[in-house]
Amino acid sequence: MIKLVVVVGRNRILTTNIINPPPTVVGCLLTSTQSQYHHSTSKSKMVSAKIAPSMLSSDFANLASEAQRMVNLGADWLHMDIMDGHFVPNLTIGAPVIESLRKHTKAYLDCHLMVTNPLDYVDAFGKAGASGFTFHVEVSKDNWQELVKQIKSKGMRPGVALKPGTPVEEVYPLLEGENCVEMVLVMTVEPGFGGQKFMPDTMSKVRTLREKYPNLDIEVDGGLGPSTIETAAAAGANCIVAGSSVFGAPEPGQVISLLRTSVNKAQKTG
Amino acid sequence: MIKLVVVVGRNRILTTNIINPPPTVVGCLLTSTQSQYHHSTSKSKMVSAKIAPSMLSSDFANLASEAQRMVNLGADWLHMDIMDGHFVPNLTIGAPVIESLRKHTKAYLDCHLMVTNPLDYVDAFGKAGASGFTFHVEVSKDNWQELVKQIKSKGMRPGVALKPGTPVEEVYPLLEGENCVEMVLVMTVEPGFGGQKFMPDTMSKVRTLREKYPNLDIEVDGGLGPSTIETAAAAGANCIVAGSSVFGAPEPGQVISLLRTSVNKAQKTG
Repeated sequence: MIKLVVVVGRNRILTTNIINPPPTVVGCLLTSTQSQYHHSTSKSKMVSAKIAPSMLSSDFANLASEAQRMVNLGADWLHMDIMDGHFVPNLTIGAPVIESLRKHTKAYLDCHLMVTNPLDYVDAFGKAGASGFTFHVEVSKDNWQELVKQIKSKGMRPGVALKPGTPVEEVYPLLEGENCVEMVLVMTVEPGFGGQKFMPDTMSKVRTLREKYPNLDIEVDGGLGPSTIETAAAAGANCIVAGSSVFGAPEPGQVISLLRTSVNKAQKTG
Repeated sequence: MIKLVVVVGRNRILTTNIINPPPTVVGCLLTSTQSQYHHSTSKSKMVSAKIAPSMLSSDFANLASEAQRMVNLGADWLHMDIMDGHFVPNLTIGAPVIESLRKHTKAYLDCHLMVTNPLDYVDAFGKAGASGFTFHVEVSKDNWQELVKQIKSKGMRPGVALKPGTPVEEVYPLLEGENCVEMVLVMTVEPGFGGQKFMPDTMSKVRTLREKYPNLDIEVDGGLGPSTIETAAAAGANCIVAGSSVFGAPEPGQVISLLRTSVNKAQKTG
């Protein structure tokens, strides 16, 4: 039996018992105590919009002030693109940069590790102060269980990412059982560089995931901006990474606000 | 025959002809027209002290101001540690960070690439505005000639680095012939992390190189500071990378000055 308590703000709006809950629900509840949002088999939608400016498009020589500027303009998360020049043909930033940035901000640092060996980085990113640790399913088929376990043990929130060419079914095992990830990042461009064009055919993966996991955080990354957000939000994405469209805008705060409005609208009507 | 003209400041202090110069001298003169310092078989010492604070020990979230601070305190170069998490077990920064920093400083950006595939980065670092491009001999035995050629063609100064366990003889081929590097970086710790202890037994490599190439830029990196500089300068090192000892000092400018004084003193008495 599980005692279910639903709290909104400071108000307890529901207290009930679930007799014989499915094992997958028990597993996720037991292992996800650090996170704010969990998925379940419930059909009620609980996900909220998270707008995450991609710092890959920021001025890396002034990261502290760029981060503060984005937070002041309404960013929910700061998306950090970690690339090792092996999994993708670009080398960007690693744990030492996260560690420096953490000293200047309390923001949620949403780290996307485009690396061939994510397990080797869990400890360093945990110590550096990363909030989310999203690894790629393509390089973790053999060790994702150990990865998720270690990520959680370091106080980070585990996520799994998949490239445009990777079938959505490959992340299903990571969303079931005791040891599950708490976010799926559907890449909407080939990872490696900023400024690429949104690939609309990746939306079928978002739709499939949203139908199957109504309360899962689903993130999209690549080519998101005012001209593509409606498509992504309608498919069910709620965590929106946006680089060029935010940092390149005359009024980045307006773009952040527009992205959030689109997600909220789609959530209400979806 | 080579016409040799020695210019100091704006004064031409020597004009002479060398009959039948050795082919190695001709090669280096022909291929090194972009650089300020060249080595030759001459016994006269022409190298000057270059103090290069290692930005790995700086505040990566305020790189522009950290760079300016070091330049203001007397730094000659800024040393940039590029690590890919494969050649060494750490991932630091790549070309996007160099590109951002270049927009804020005209300083010489001395990039040390601790990566398994340096050839893949030449174009990106050239475009980003790197000044020096130092690759590791351990990963470039098969393609160093192509590497040196491409580095020069992108307007950067080629250097070669060797780990503490690599025999000095391995860099000799890169210092001869038409297509030579212009600096040797002798690692005085195992590359990968800052704050390590200087390994004095690496000094035999510096001494051997200085005897063989009196005018070569020889850089040392790892554990350099007030307590180790005398040893390194006496061995013949003239380019000094210093991280923790500079950034951790109450008066970083005094440490930079002390390092320079030691090198200059050793050059005069050496």
